[in-house]
Formats: sequence, structure tokens, C-alpha cells
Amino acid sequence: MAELLTTRKENYSQWYNELVIKANLAENSVVRGCMVIKPYGYALWENMRDVLDKMFKQTGHQNAYFPLFIPKSYLSREASHVEGFAKECAVVTHYRLKQSPDNEGVIVDPDSKLEEELIVRPTSETIIWSTYKNWIQSYRDLPILINQWANVVRWEMRTRLFLRTAEFLWQEGHTAHQTKEEAIEETEKIIHLYADFVENYMAVPVMVGLKTASERFAGAVETYCIEALMQDGKSLQAGTSHFLGQNFAKAFDVQFLNKENKLEYVWATSWGVSTRLIGALIMTHSDDKGLVLPPKIAPLQVVIIPIYRNEEQEAKVSEVANAIVKELQQKNISVKYDNRDEYRSGWKFNEYEMQGVPVRITVGARDLEKNQVEVFRRDTMDKKLATPDVVVDEIVDLLEDIQQNIFNKALAFREKNTCVVDTWEEFKDVIENKGGFVSAHWDGTAETEEAIKEATKATIRCIPLNNPQEEGKCIFSGKPSKERVLFAKSY
Amino acid sequence: MAELLTTRKENYSQWYNELVIKANLAENSVVRGCMVIKPYGYALWENMRDVLDKMFKQTGHQNAYFPLFIPKSYLSREASHVEGFAKECAVVTHYRLKQSPDNEGVIVDPDSKLEEELIVRPTSETIIWSTYKNWIQSYRDLPILINQWANVVRWEMRTRLFLRTAEFLWQEGHTAHQTKEEAIEETEKIIHLYADFVENYMAVPVMVGLKTASERFAGAVETYCIEALMQDGKSLQAGTSHFLGQNFAKAFDVQFLNKENKLEYVWATSWGVSTRLIGALIMTHSDDKGLVLPPKIAPLQVVIIPIYRNEEQEAKVSEVANAIVKELQQKNISVKYDNRDEYRSGWKFNEYEMQGVPVRITVGARDLEKNQVEVFRRDTMDKKLATPDVVVDEIVDLLEDIQQNIFNKALAFREKNTCVVDTWEEFKDVIENKGGFVSAHWDGTAETEEAIKEATKATIRCIPLNNPQEEGKCIFSGKPSKERVLFAKSY
Repeated sequence: MAELLTTRKENYSQWYNELVIKANLAENSVVRGCMVIKPYGYALWENMRDVLDKMFKQTGHQNAYFPLFIPKSYLSREASHVEGFAKECAVVTHYRLKQSPDNEGVIVDPDSKLEEELIVRPTSETIIWSTYKNWIQSYRDLPILINQWANVVRWEMRTRLFLRTAEFLWQEGHTAHQTKEEAIEETEKIIHLYADFVENYMAVPVMVGLKTASERFAGAVETYCIEALMQDGKSLQAGTSHFLGQNFAKAFDVQFLNKENKLEYVWATSWGVSTRLIGALIMTHSDDKGLVLPPKIAPLQVVIIPIYRNEEQEAKVSEVANAIVKELQQKNISVKYDNRDEYRSGWKFNEYEMQGVPVRITVGARDLEKNQVEVFRRDTMDKKLATPDVVVDEIVDLLEDIQQNIFNKALAFREKNTCVVDTWEEFKDVIENKGGFVSAHWDGTAETEEAIKEATKATIRCIPLNNPQEEGKCIFSGKPSKERVLFAKSY
Repeated sequence: MAELLTTRKENYSQWYNELVIKANLAENSVVRGCMVIKPYGYALWENMRDVLDKMFKQTGHQNAYFPLFIPKSYLSREASHVEGFAKECAVVTHYRLKQSPDNEGVIVDPDSKLEEELIVRPTSETIIWSTYKNWIQSYRDLPILINQWANVVRWEMRTRLFLRTAEFLWQEGHTAHQTKEEAIEETEKIIHLYADFVENYMAVPVMVGLKTASERFAGAVETYCIEALMQDGKSLQAGTSHFLGQNFAKAFDVQFLNKENKLEYVWATSWGVSTRLIGALIMTHSDDKGLVLPPKIAPLQVVIIPIYRNEEQEAKVSEVANAIVKELQQKNISVKYDNRDEYRSGWKFNEYEMQGVPVRITVGARDLEKNQVEVFRRDTMDKKLATPDVVVDEIVDLLEDIQQNIFNKALAFREKNTCVVDTWEEFKDVIENKGGFVSAHWDGTAETEEAIKEATKATIRCIPLNNPQEEGKCIFSGKPSKERVLFAKSY
């Protein structure tokens, strides 16, 4: 029998760490903070990437690829950008190794020192806007709607698989527009696209909102975000879309001739989601038995496990199993018939539960005598019997039901764990003892925001879009406020 | 009218450089040796990648992702590997920047020096085999059939877009096996998979063969390759598949318990193709008018251009064009109706010829009066008329015909430019004045190989698989030889 996970109640953080390893998603590498994404984890990422990529293309975006390296001086061009990103980055200083004098290995060749150091991209605004400068002369060259799938590096001190790693995979969109309105429209279009993807494919409900000034992307005028509530009551930023104003256009002198033949600076957006989404996915749905995956992006949707005692039974069982495989494949449902001899069926049950395969069909010789197979759904752990000739149709419905059910469950959890709070005492109590989202009035100042963070570790996760306006008093300072914002502790 | 290309005859090298830029495939970035792959070039790469990825998966391989960085000491573990790769690599020595004392920018923080430098991967054998060590205990864990799509960096001194860049995109397969035979079988399976892809999708004929010892991958026991002949008579290595023996297993101490319960070192292969393939594609098919792309991987297969003089004509033309678009899309043929007003049709013709769109349909008001549209094929530049109601069926056949025709043309070129040569004088003359592949006897020694290279710049591109055995004398040394090998100048 497979080793059990630490339960969420015992130690949520350890549960997560163990689960990522035991479900074969990823592991730490020998390089500090960098992960190895294993085939099962990567297949999950591929499914997520493919859906997003299609959504980007359907909204008029094209993919391209920009260099891994950024000249050091480029980072400094946009003042707040360098503040945010220069601190933790991998710096390339040399371009050659040579045999060490003792012949015991290689050393950096001091003669290969670069004139200007190169930074491994932590994000690509600077290298991309230096390129756009040559692409944009007139309004006819706009908009530019480009996305890049890439690896980036941020030298984080404390890392956790998927949630925060030195190197991670992501997509970063970088668009250029004639007008402020068009750029804002793009920024908003993308945050809604992200919300659509995360809710309807990953089955993770999100709050869509704006970041406060102090939580904005370094170099942005406005940062939109989606925030998801994890089972431990902490919020996770799952994606961001930035309206960059003309900041990068000014930093890299990117102007265009408008229709009135006048030079204007270009308006910009950037936006991204990363392998961090996998962390959000795991922590939203999974349980003490292992992963729970939404069928729409699960690498494997159905697994079939045979049970038999002799060759004659095996033949019958396999015939039925193979027929089901074929039927499922015709419906574009991914399926594996795991008839390996070297593992017992109990071991297989645990293994696929750990890996979160949404549906398991057990084809047993004795059940078959009654013209039955067993269908198990991972989300509720419920089993029921079905006749082989209709089981495929039932599974089509079941997969949809699982997708909807895990979303509903996560939404109910979030609703249960979102409190409206009006006093400082209550605020502290909820943040400390209950967790979750806290909707409270805030006076709009960075000082108050900082003081609340100091006192409680809670930050403003977002100012929800279409937030109802209401008169109130800041829970901390008592000063007047016009709307509530969402606080939480966060990843 | 679009600017003309330098012709291939005038200056082949300049023709290539201009074409990559003018066809909007890629450009040099501000970072020395690193390219920006523009949307059109990236769409081409995506199509190639998607076909290859499917072929890998159909042959049982899975994707995964390993770290960008390799600890310096890992490179030294395999003696010949470090020889080959340590010379030109990007070395990360620090992990933080800070404000310069004069506040004019950022400098490398000397306190952030890494204990051990990290190398930006030039290839991933070392990091992957250090990982496999933990994944492999017994024969049950084998084979491991993993592929990675990634960026790699080799600090080349002379770079050219796609052909040789400091950073490039590629896939690298890394497999682990129980037996030597199984590993060799995998190595050969992959080189044939590459040949299949390059010939049947890229329409580029290749020679499949073995590299000589001096041209082998650093760390390989045997390197298989595919070589393609470019229009200037030089050969381009388009893909390699390496049988690594137990070299990396020994370097990283990766042993497994075999079925007899004895410890054995694991057998390995690695194999890769890169964005360099795009260089091969361009140089095989394109002409002085621009790119010529094989329909199976062209980002855009058909473009439709309208010609009209007034609104009434425009309405009729667009109705026909849109109907054709719809029909083509139903057949999964990619198509664009370019009805932009701001460009004249002559300009559009040149533009899409430069970009190598395989088929152009011109829907003109006057042609329509005769119930005709004009169909143009890029490969031969031939035009013919067709009636709108059958044009789509004709295009389905035409795309297949173009695919086959450009392959046949390239194959005929290679056959015409492959000489069988038996004397040193003739060898020198052909290499110097005609170029192409030269099939000649060689005594099998590295000394002779090197001397021939010194004298003529030609190298042994490969020893073809299933090479006929025949007695002969080395063209250089006169010593006995049992088979001919293929010489050429190369990229």
C-alpha cells in the first residue's frame, strides 16, 4: 500500500510538499530553488498551456520569442521596474570556462569577462520594448499583440515547488497600442480571459480586482489580478494583467506618428500566468488521499483497472476493458488500461487516487458475470455500478459533473470563508483564527495598508472590480472610506 | 513595390541574411548572438514543433522540464563532454544587483557571489543524469523516455540567424535503457523519425548516417546524423541522435538492479533538433523572390487577394472570397483574406511571395464576370484560372502537389550535386569549384580526415547507413578502404 500523506489538518504546508512529490508532479533539483517538472506535472502544464494558447490566439495574439538575457543597463531604464527586479536575479558575468591549473575540473576563464553583465530575464518588458522601438513607426504598426512562452528566473530566497521557484515557466503578453483606452481595454480583456480559464478549466473560483499602489507590478500604472482562496484560508495571486501607461515607451523612447501625423508615446500592457497556477490547482481541490484534478485539464481522465484470477477471466475482462477504451477514445476522452501484472489492484487504486485521475473503472471478472463494472469518481470517492454498454455515456456526463462539482465545492468554501468585518478587533480575530478573505473598509493610504500588514500579516489582495460603493470607516484608522477591499494572508 | 533581395548568385550569404529579415522571420537582438524570433518565424517553429511533438509521443516519449542552470562541477563529470561544452558558455556568478554609489544605475552586488558558479545549459545530459540517478533503482524503472523543449546557450563567436545563435530553441531527448541493444535501437529509431519529419514535412531530403569519431557529440559512443544539401553546395547537419553507451551513467553513478538482481550501469541516448532546422528549410527551397515554404508546415497556406474598383465590385468580390475562406477552413486549410485598403494588390503579391505562402488566389471583379479566379502557386510561380465552385478542391490537390514538387526539386538538386570521386585532384577540383556531396574512399584515420579538412575545408559529413561495402583506396593517403564516405563543406 502506498505511503499515506500527512493530513491537511496535521500540517497543511507539509501535506502540500509531500503531495507534489508523491503525485509525481515535480521535485527539487540540485540547483537551489530550481525544480524538475516530471512528466505527469508537465503533461498537466501542457494541457493548461494549450487551452490558454488557443484563447490568446482567438483574441488576436501571436506568439514570438525574445532573448533570455537582458543587458544590465536596460533594467535601469524604467526607474520603478529596476527597484522591483534588480534585487533578485541571476547575473551572467563570463562566457567561458577553462581547465583548472591542477586539471581537476574547470574554472571560470577570467579573460572572458563581459563588458556589460547580462541578467537572466526575470520578466521581459525591457528587452521587448527595446525591440518594439524598431518595429513601431506609425499608427499602422499598432496594435502589437504578442505573447511569449518562456522560462524566467527570480532569485527567491525561500522557494516551494510551483508556488515560488527561482526558475519557472510562464507566458508573458506584451502589447502596444495607440491609445490609453485601447490599452486599458486590453488589460481588462486579459484579466477576464484569465478568470475564464482558471474558473472554467481549472475549476478554481477567483476574485477579479485591482491591486493597491503598493502591490502593483514594478513599472505599472495599474495592476489587475485574480486571487484564489486556498484551503488553508490564504489567498494566492493566480495571474496579473498590467496597464503600463507610457512608462516603458518613454524609457525606451518608443513613439509613433498618429493619424494626425504627430509623434506620441505608445501605450502598453503586459500580463502573465505561470507554473504557479499548478500550485493553486493543487491547493484548491486536493485532499488527504492526494490530488483531485478537474477533468478538462487532467493528463489522464479515466483509468481502467482489471481484476481477475486466471487466464480465462483475464481474457474476458480485457475484452470488455479494451472495448471501453476504444469507445472513450472515440469521444476524445483520455484513458489508460493499466493491466500491469507486477502491481496489485489495491496499489493501483491508491496510486491513481494520489494522482487525481478523475474517474476509475474497475472491470472485475465477478462483476462481469452480473454484466457490471464499477465506476469510481475521485472527487467524492463515490462508487457505483454500471453496465458495460452504457458506461461510456455515463462517463461523459460524470466528467462534466466532476468538473462542475469541484468548482462548486471550492466556491462554497470561499463563500464560507469570506467575512464582512467592521471593527479592528474583529478583523484581527478573523485573520488570526479563521483566515480567508476579509472584506473591510480601508482609508486608501499606503501607511494604513502597511500598518495592517505589520500587525496581522494580512495584505490587501484586491479591490474587486465593480465593487459596490458604500460609505464607511477604515477598520484601522477610522478615517472615511468609500468602498470595502479584500484582505487576506497570502502566498 | 517591395525591395528586392540580393540574388543567390550575387551573394548567397547576403541573400540568406536579407531573406530572414524581409520575410519577417527573425532579427538580431541587442544581446550579442541572441535572436528575436518574430511572430511569422515563431508560427513556423510552432508548426514544426507540434508535428515533432506528436511523433515523439506516438513513439512512447513524454515531455518534462529540467533546470536552466547546471552547477559548474557537473560539466566536468564526463571527461570528453566538458571538453566539448565548457569552452563557450554563459556563466552565472552572482545573484543580485544593487544601486550604484552614484545612483546612476545598478551594479553587481559583490556580496552575492555564488559559492559555485552556474552554467546556462548548453545541453542537459549532466543535469538530467544527475536527476535520473534518483529515479532509477531497478529494471522496472526502465526505460525512461523523456523529451524536453527548451532554450539552450552556446557562446558562439560568429553567429547567423537560425543557423548559429548563442541562444536557440530546441528539443532534447534523453533516454535510459537496460541494455546496449535497446539503447542503440532507440538511437536509430529517432534518427529515422527525424529523417521522416524533415523529408515528409519540411520537404528537405537528407542523408542518414554515422559521424566519424572526430565529429561525434562530446560524450557519445556513436553519433547518428541527418545531413541536408543547401543550394550553395554546402551541407547542413539538421539533427543528431547519440548512443551514449554507459558514459553518463558512470559519470553520475546511475546503476540499476537487473532481472538477475545484479547491479549494472544504465545505457543512454540523447538526441536533438533545433531552430537551426528553419535555416535548412529556408536555404533548401527559397529563391530570389523570397521564401518557399512546404504547405504542411507553412503558417499560412493560402492567401486571398481581392481586386475591385468600386463598392459594387467589392461586394461581389468579397462574397466569393469569403465563401472560399469558409470552404478552405472546413478542410482545415489555413487561409487569410487580405482585403486591407491601405496596400495595393501589387504590394501584397510581393509581400506574400517574400513570405512564401504556398498558394495565392486573386479574386478580381473582371475575372468574376467570366466566373473565374486566379490561382498562383509560389513554388513554380505559375498561374492558372479556376472557377470559384471548384477552386477549393483544386487547392487541396495543389497543396499536395507543391509539397511533393519542392521535395523532388531538392532531391534532384542533391543528386545532381553528389559526385563519386576517386582521385585527390578530382576531389579538390569538385570541392573547390562545384561543391555538393563528394562520395570518396577514406582510410578511416583521424589524421587523414584532418589533413583533408586542412587542404580543402571539406569534412566527412557522414558514413551513410546501409553503405555498400566496396574495396578502394583512400583518395588522400592511398591506403586501403572498405567503403565510401560523404564529404562536403558545411555550415
